Amino acid sequence: MTQPNGRSLFLHDELDKLIDPAVIAVVGASTTPGGFGHRTMENLRGFTGRVYGVNPRYDSVEGRVCVPTLGDLPEVPDCVIVCVARQLVLETLEEAARIGARGAVVYASGFSETGRDDGIAAQHAIAELSRRTGLRVAGPNCVGLVNVATGGAMNFMTDSGAITAGADGGIAIVSQSGALGYTVLQAVVRGVGISHYLAAGNSADVDVCDYIAYLAEEPTAEVIICLLEGVESGERFLQAAGLAEAAGKPLIVYKAGNNEKSGRAALSHTGTLTGSTAAYRAACEQVGAIWLDDLEALTETAAFFAKNPLGPDTPGVGIMSTSGGAGVINADKAEDNELDLPDLHKSTRDVLTEVVPVFGSIGNPADLTAEVLKDAATFSRCLDAFAADPGLGVVVVPLVFVHESTTGVRAPLLSAAGARTDTALAAVWMNDWLEGPGSRVLDGDPNVTLFRSPARCMRAIRLWQDWHARRRHLAGTRRAKRVSDPAAAVTARGILTASGIGASALTEQQAKAILSAYGIAVPRDVAVRTPDEAAQAADRIGYPVVLKVASPDIQHKTEIGAVRLDLTSAEEVRQAAAEILDNASLLVPGARIEGLSVQTMLDSGAEVLLGARIDLQFGPLITVGSGGILVELHRDISTRLAPVSVDDARRMIESLRLHQILTGVRGDPGYDMGALVDAAARFSEMVGDLADILAEVDVNPLIVGRSGATAADALVAVRDTEAVTV
Amino acid sequence: MTQPNGRSLFLHDELDKLIDPAVIAVVGASTTPGGFGHRTMENLRGFTGRVYGVNPRYDSVEGRVCVPTLGDLPEVPDCVIVCVARQLVLETLEEAARIGARGAVVYASGFSETGRDDGIAAQHAIAELSRRTGLRVAGPNCVGLVNVATGGAMNFMTDSGAITAGADGGIAIVSQSGALGYTVLQAVVRGVGISHYLAAGNSADVDVCDYIAYLAEEPTAEVIICLLEGVESGERFLQAAGLAEAAGKPLIVYKAGNNEKSGRAALSHTGTLTGSTAAYRAACEQVGAIWLDDLEALTETAAFFAKNPLGPDTPGVGIMSTSGGAGVINADKAEDNELDLPDLHKSTRDVLTEVVPVFGSIGNPADLTAEVLKDAATFSRCLDAFAADPGLGVVVVPLVFVHESTTGVRAPLLSAAGARTDTALAAVWMNDWLEGPGSRVLDGDPNVTLFRSPARCMRAIRLWQDWHARRRHLAGTRRAKRVSDPAAAVTARGILTASGIGASALTEQQAKAILSAYGIAVPRDVAVRTPDEAAQAADRIGYPVVLKVASPDIQHKTEIGAVRLDLTSAEEVRQAAAEILDNASLLVPGARIEGLSVQTMLDSGAEVLLGARIDLQFGPLITVGSGGILVELHRDISTRLAPVSVDDARRMIESLRLHQILTGVRGDPGYDMGALVDAAARFSEMVGDLADILAEVDVNPLIVGRSGATAADALVAVRDTEAVTV
Repeated sequence: MTQPNGRSLFLHDELDKLIDPAVIAVVGASTTPGGFGHRTMENLRGFTGRVYGVNPRYDSVEGRVCVPTLGDLPEVPDCVIVCVARQLVLETLEEAARIGARGAVVYASGFSETGRDDGIAAQHAIAELSRRTGLRVAGPNCVGLVNVATGGAMNFMTDSGAITAGADGGIAIVSQSGALGYTVLQAVVRGVGISHYLAAGNSADVDVCDYIAYLAEEPTAEVIICLLEGVESGERFLQAAGLAEAAGKPLIVYKAGNNEKSGRAALSHTGTLTGSTAAYRAACEQVGAIWLDDLEALTETAAFFAKNPLGPDTPGVGIMSTSGGAGVINADKAEDNELDLPDLHKSTRDVLTEVVPVFGSIGNPADLTAEVLKDAATFSRCLDAFAADPGLGVVVVPLVFVHESTTGVRAPLLSAAGARTDTALAAVWMNDWLEGPGSRVLDGDPNVTLFRSPARCMRAIRLWQDWHARRRHLAGTRRAKRVSDPAAAVTARGILTASGIGASALTEQQAKAILSAYGIAVPRDVAVRTPDEAAQAADRIGYPVVLKVASPDIQHKTEIGAVRLDLTSAEEVRQAAAEILDNASLLVPGARIEGLSVQTMLDSGAEVLLGARIDLQFGPLITVGSGGILVELHRDISTRLAPVSVDDARRMIESLRLHQILTGVRGDPGYDMGALVDAAARFSEMVGDLADILAEVDVNPLIVGRSGATAADALVAVRDTEAVTV
Repeated sequence: MTQPNGRSLFLHDELDKLIDPAVIAVVGASTTPGGFGHRTMENLRGFTGRVYGVNPRYDSVEGRVCVPTLGDLPEVPDCVIVCVARQLVLETLEEAARIGARGAVVYASGFSETGRDDGIAAQHAIAELSRRTGLRVAGPNCVGLVNVATGGAMNFMTDSGAITAGADGGIAIVSQSGALGYTVLQAVVRGVGISHYLAAGNSADVDVCDYIAYLAEEPTAEVIICLLEGVESGERFLQAAGLAEAAGKPLIVYKAGNNEKSGRAALSHTGTLTGSTAAYRAACEQVGAIWLDDLEALTETAAFFAKNPLGPDTPGVGIMSTSGGAGVINADKAEDNELDLPDLHKSTRDVLTEVVPVFGSIGNPADLTAEVLKDAATFSRCLDAFAADPGLGVVVVPLVFVHESTTGVRAPLLSAAGARTDTALAAVWMNDWLEGPGSRVLDGDPNVTLFRSPARCMRAIRLWQDWHARRRHLAGTRRAKRVSDPAAAVTARGILTASGIGASALTEQQAKAILSAYGIAVPRDVAVRTPDEAAQAADRIGYPVVLKVASPDIQHKTEIGAVRLDLTSAEEVRQAAAEILDNASLLVPGARIEGLSVQTMLDSGAEVLLGARIDLQFGPLITVGSGGILVELHRDISTRLAPVSVDDARRMIESLRLHQILTGVRGDPGYDMGALVDAAARFSEMVGDLADILAEVDVNPLIVGRSGATAADALVAVRDTEAVTV
């Protein structure tokens, strides 16, 4: 697995001694309370393997043998935890590699994160050592790791050994920031089960991508949470995420730093609309990773995926409430997430009719009323009836009052019901006593997932349904075929090269010629120099016509009055041409004006944006969305990595508000969806083919008519002069 | 305070014996564990007033004197808590009224909530008794009340006396559903301070509006949370909310049941876009109430308002983080809420420069790094520097790791810093150990507010800034003047009456005549019968023209091809007229076709929707939004109760995405905002004046040009034939 953008992912075996060691040496082990060396030894108290201290000042630390140097160890350690000061890190790592250790964790900070030359150089030295020796290093500036199954709490956090002891579960946490990952890990305190906590720190050697790839092959990790700030190599991230997908493990991604100052200068609309976060998100969608916007949603969502690995057998969601208001609130949030709340099956209604009093409701949401809670057997019977309802893939049970006598009693009943069914069970804790009686039972339950927000519960169900639907769909598809002619790339490169040195953007004619090569329709277009020539051309191609300035230096022509639509006579054309030429030279001083373009006026239709941007991390991205001059206002867009298949193009379009217009609103027959899907797929292939040359592309608007779709305007910006002439 | 829609609000004095009694009698007091009569006596253990049991079976219950009947009490009780079965409720209330009690709480269910005739009749009997005797009744089907200051836990919930003892604070909870209100009340368990919990149950007598009005005059209640399902009288709700506003108390409203099935049939776009929840929301905005969508946001938001009653002295928000990632996440959410994160003042930077290591950051968000946490004095000094920064009105401190040694130590430092400053302090608990060390200190702190979600924290700050800004603005405004001619209503009623029996909607001409009477510009418009007359009219008013069918039975003309734009010659007009007449009679069989309308073609401009709907609860609503044929797609709307002032109209428009187009995008000079504001205010006055006759109104589009705004199309639907002819 090699790649242009840096090294390959490390293999599972290369990382196994680092993450799952049998023998650990702690260099700098000490008895000084609060120090890294002492905390680490404390945290490893429950480690199932062997631990040695390395420090000339002690013979033993925390009951473990302590030796003066790494060379004095009675056996070769798999992993060395480096608790020493920055200045001693490199020599410690050299020694670790020399004695045959295969992994090391480096806590010390003061490296690249300082932004200073000496720090950066020191980090480069670690990276170089790793490459040279094969010693896999987590860090520097790294909090450390936890391998819950072995009690391997290889980090300096207070009590992390104690709190993670016995907290086994299917959720693995991978984080660049040790701090943020650890805040999620602390869910173990309320009962949530975790398999791994792997912090990457500055990632001199091992990074989050490697961790994801490792976990994809680790049986104890069922769901992977990844907390990102940014990755060095988009391609490596995609590869790692792809491995998780291939292993059938949901990868849940949260990225800190989602907003970007809007003042960014961009030539195209697409450049303004799709920043780097959009690229991460598009990359995640491409490989089926789950994107979350809120840190506090991570564990709940991950737990739901982990506890319900088979996915839903039907999209129906049932809400079994014992309070009318709680049922309605959950139904609100289900509707927000477009979840289906079907009527209950007759078998379920038969059970409920027997036990629910007259002031309750056996609809969906059902309000069983507090009466049903008075007797444990009745409550359990209702739960079983919901779980057995053939129309329901998930049953949601809101919990309202919190006491020993309510949630304290009900949590074990839910837990028992969960063990009896394959239907997914979620409990919603609708109470401000956050860790009240029963919550620990449910947080730690293998079958029931506890949410502390109706909105987060319904969102997680939506994501889970979509994730499993996508997998089922993928299983049934063959590799997508290319739509456009592969030779189009040759034609396009010819045009791009001919555009010559110094052009940051092509003329509209050149841009449209490239689109045309890829089989995307463009209007008939005649290049002219003077108002008289324009009138003659218009007479030839027939009225009405559109008139535009032709200039490589003017991108947004409408805004300076250099476009005129719907001209119906030679006289109108002549006059408009003169005005356009005046406007252009007046309002864009110094612009090279090559003349005018006379074009067939298109019939009206839906205005669509096809856009592209080449992202630094992830390469070519395409965007499809509501087009026209208000594109930035509506922000109705979908972005993916290019190229996309025809199926993916259709899914992108279906996710837009625009889709309603295309399929027809208020009696309108709608527009040619097939032509748009085809054009979008062709466009994505063009962008994929030419990613090394292009910078940004806007086709805006692509006019989608009752039949066919035509690019009414196009802007192609190239990377830089060098790239074009090469 | 009388009103057409039911009775007036109860006065504070009328409710005081119910909510703040000195003497309580519990009818049905008992020693049976778990029974309502026993739980109530348990809950009143800490009550500072006097409590009596009423039950012939006991001489004493829970150490309180118990007498056989209400008539045997040694003194008159202020409030009687009725724990008896449904069948005995009415006679108990009669007796309570007879002996001079002034308030009663009725637990029993089985009344109107059953939907059955006998239950409804029984509830009517309670209401009638209350009216007749002046006994103020909470319930039936009511969980009860808590008055925290007096230990008056007058309800049957397990342990509610114990958990609310000493939990005094400024947050009052008013709820229709006792269950939902109680889930919020249980925040006291983690330290949140509460003043009242007032459940209304079925509201036979006292309802949530009365409670709000009472709390507006209660000094211990500083912020009011209201959990709504729906109110009987919109006007009473507005009055109560207005009292809270006048008392300077934030009223936070959460409504269960926010989604409405979208299949609702509506004649106008506005009817489709604005359902009953929009009316509640508009009503809240009108009186400055704060609308929240998530139950779990209520206590945090309320606590922030309660702890920071003075509002911000500057809009700047400072983020003082000790983890880079945590700072960035909070900055993301601040940006989502359009909060201002200014650069820190020199005085703050001077302090930070001394203590923050090189790998930290003294920007905003600041990353002080974990170094600063090692020493309490340093951490406190940084907090004080932020709090004293003249550019900051709020300081947000993310807390990441949770341990006794971290948050356990830091919480008291934050608490102490909060006590030293008037700047608002918020802590964000970014950890899955939800009630870990230190959380109780902060949840109960009088100055610092603890949030468990960065997004909720920043949203609360935004709402708090807006609420205080609105109050400051109101303080500086005089009563808004009417814009339109009051005599316009007479003209309009004349047109509406003349429209005759059987018309569910006016013709476009009639609709525009009404708009015109209110001073809203309409295009020149000539009514004709034949294609030839149309051509002659077009010659007269000048080209280009618009041609439309004139029919009271055709509302959405574009969709059936009965509108033609931009006709430039008599021949075009003649031909288009013939086609329109054909389309109309073909596609809307049976429609009465009165001919055609020839109109001046308006220059292009921004397309705006002015809409109105008369709500059953709240009366006339107006909606301003992005107009045109895609109005339902963009859902870019703002809704208020009509009429609105010019200032409010401007604020509505400023809240829209459309506002960007009006002020100019990408070099466009923008459109006549003043003309739009004026038209919207006039429109709202028209809707307010004619609310008894109108049903729905769409002006779509109102074309807002570079100068002026003109109603290009209008649809006026009237309530029913009777209403028009009266």
